[in-house]
Amino acid sequence: MLKRKLIVQKYGGSSVVDTSRIKKVADRIAKQKKRGYGVVVVVSALGDTTDNLISLAQEITDSPSEREMDMLMSTGEQMSIALLAMALHKLGLEAISFTGAQVGIITDASHTKAKILDINSKRIDSELKKGKIVIVAGFQGITISDDITTLGRGGSNLTAVALAKALRASTCEMCTDVEGVYTADPRIVADARKISSISYEEMLELASAGAQVLQPRSIEVAKKFNVPIHIRSSFSDKNGTIISKEVKSMEDIVVRGVALNKNEAKITICDVPDKPGIAATIFKKIADANINIDMIIQNVSRTGYTDVSFTVMSRDLKKTLKITEQVRQSIGSGEIACNDNIAKLSIVGIGMRSHSGIASRMFGALARNKINIDMISTSEIKISCTINKKSAKKAVRAIHKEFKLGKAN
Amino acid sequence: MLKRKLIVQKYGGSSVVDTSRIKKVADRIAKQKKRGYGVVVVVSALGDTTDNLISLAQEITDSPSEREMDMLMSTGEQMSIALLAMALHKLGLEAISFTGAQVGIITDASHTKAKILDINSKRIDSELKKGKIVIVAGFQGITISDDITTLGRGGSNLTAVALAKALRASTCEMCTDVEGVYTADPRIVADARKISSISYEEMLELASAGAQVLQPRSIEVAKKFNVPIHIRSSFSDKNGTIISKEVKSMEDIVVRGVALNKNEAKITICDVPDKPGIAATIFKKIADANINIDMIIQNVSRTGYTDVSFTVMSRDLKKTLKITEQVRQSIGSGEIACNDNIAKLSIVGIGMRSHSGIASRMFGALARNKINIDMISTSEIKISCTINKKSAKKAVRAIHKEFKLGKAN
Repeated sequence: MLKRKLIVQKYGGSSVVDTSRIKKVADRIAKQKKRGYGVVVVVSALGDTTDNLISLAQEITDSPSEREMDMLMSTGEQMSIALLAMALHKLGLEAISFTGAQVGIITDASHTKAKILDINSKRIDSELKKGKIVIVAGFQGITISDDITTLGRGGSNLTAVALAKALRASTCEMCTDVEGVYTADPRIVADARKISSISYEEMLELASAGAQVLQPRSIEVAKKFNVPIHIRSSFSDKNGTIISKEVKSMEDIVVRGVALNKNEAKITICDVPDKPGIAATIFKKIADANINIDMIIQNVSRTGYTDVSFTVMSRDLKKTLKITEQVRQSIGSGEIACNDNIAKLSIVGIGMRSHSGIASRMFGALARNKINIDMISTSEIKISCTINKKSAKKAVRAIHKEFKLGKAN
Repeated sequence: MLKRKLIVQKYGGSSVVDTSRIKKVADRIAKQKKRGYGVVVVVSALGDTTDNLISLAQEITDSPSEREMDMLMSTGEQMSIALLAMALHKLGLEAISFTGAQVGIITDASHTKAKILDINSKRIDSELKKGKIVIVAGFQGITISDDITTLGRGGSNLTAVALAKALRASTCEMCTDVEGVYTADPRIVADARKISSISYEEMLELASAGAQVLQPRSIEVAKKFNVPIHIRSSFSDKNGTIISKEVKSMEDIVVRGVALNKNEAKITICDVPDKPGIAATIFKKIADANINIDMIIQNVSRTGYTDVSFTVMSRDLKKTLKITEQVRQSIGSGEIACNDNIAKLSIVGIGMRSHSGIASRMFGALARNKINIDMISTSEIKISCTINKKSAKKAVRAIHKEFKLGKAN
């Protein structure tokens, strides 16, 4: 569909820490507006607002209802949009703020991690036509039965991409506290380089693998609707990283980047009867609880029994163990073991599809550094392995060096 | 209309200062619920949330847009309702929270002081039928074009009364940090007494006169729809003050109470041409700006010119002076003077209708205490006069004593 001279800009919590930062963001938006672009701004909650709200809830109860958590959490972004609108007014610009509900960001009812089903962009279009800058609360939506929902961590990105699609924006800028996507975490690897261009697939794998710049779901949506994303700094005019459809030249790079994820935990169900449907039983129960499973490893059994291992986010570990225990009883398997002392190391690159020997180079580099590999899983453009958490940084540096990622290509 | 076994309880900001108070409020609601009543709770923002939000806005701009102020301020109550719902869940009760928009509290578009036009109680009714405690954000509503509004200071009371009417509740409890309505402010008058029963008209005059227990608008609505109000403490089970329709015995009391208002300022327009329509011109402009005028004094002129004095809330003084200045130029009057060093002293009682000599007793008591009277205005059941601010407390004590309000009647 024809794209419009319209930019969606998203500012995360680190860009709107306090009112002085909000004023800076307003200045930046004003510049864009002066270039003749329509501007829709998606904004997150101010700095530590979200954490403060969570603390308040915890003072009341250990296990708050998810619906009420969404009611509580959604106030954070509502504060930001009002303050940002005021800051733009102060600069003499016309601006108007909206909650997710007001601009018809319709989601399903999975409170705290809802999915956007539809956006009714009528109200935004009508305000854009009046020449106004439209400010939308990120991270939140509303169900068809009029309950407020939130989209989960990083949900503001999802709001931005979904709006860019619905409004046929020419680009979706993610303004943040980093200058773009790097070949590795610059806090770990001194010569990590900014990547100027990356495909959706690679970014998706990097994000799933632990690169915390963008949540995987927002990249998936961007890919599905071919919305180009520009990840850049809120505080400079330098170009950042463009995430877009794969182009031929991208295949020349074998490994685009290295990612590390220390937020997963491993669960092993021992002595699972090797019968059809057992794995399905296990993972269906977990999926029903809206818990995402990352790696799954099962070895072929010779005894009629097998061990099944998988990883989940550490924060979901307790809940998952509870479910796994119920499943264990119903399927008659053995003990359940868990380990949250693991780190997942991944390399990503669409060049892997046409280059061979990448895995053995990765494993070789780890072996030379005496780092033991636990689980391994691969996709067409990614190789991941779990290692002991304490070797994580050393491993990232070794891999970054092995694939010469510090050198310009 | 037949009333239901349903109570609307409203808890103000002082009752929900922090999460420990929220838990106490939850205990109190649980008791009511156990008595077999349906319960709808209206709650204000936590303690100093509102002030904090105002500070944030002030860090951005001196003159925030009223629409954006409403967007910002309405988050305060949204936090409270979520936290209170969690606290009730913790007690094992079923509860669900709603914003003003979600329960269809439809208002006009006078941002920061909107009027409720209608309430669509369908959603509340459906949740009450499921046995749930329904928690509604006070102070806020939504326009038919889906913009968030707030109802002005004390607006949560208005929400409570309007809901009690819409839901045909048997009573509307205003739970607050005082034990009821007193014959005078107990912080000023040591022997001030709690009034057990008062008519809407008297309460209306007392509130307009400065008694800060309830805003006049909520009493007007309660009177209009004959909703009995019970003002009582959030922290004790003692009965407070019932506000209801006038009954015959109420006339025996000549003066129900004394009120003091130190939040008004006086504006005088000098040498106004004494022609028909001039007063209308002045006051229409002020009304158009949504500013409430309290007392108006104009003496008959002999020269063709007259001085017109009136009082407004001190916080509206600046805005009113600006409007008055414009009017002055268009009607060709003289100078404008203002004085915000005034206090308004009022006595209220429906007994005044059938007893004479009340005004002279009031003025006599002030004279004996060497307190000079500036403006005087009277209604059927109220006498107000403005005096110098610094004599205010002395005046209240003198009047309270004169009418023996400290003695049980």
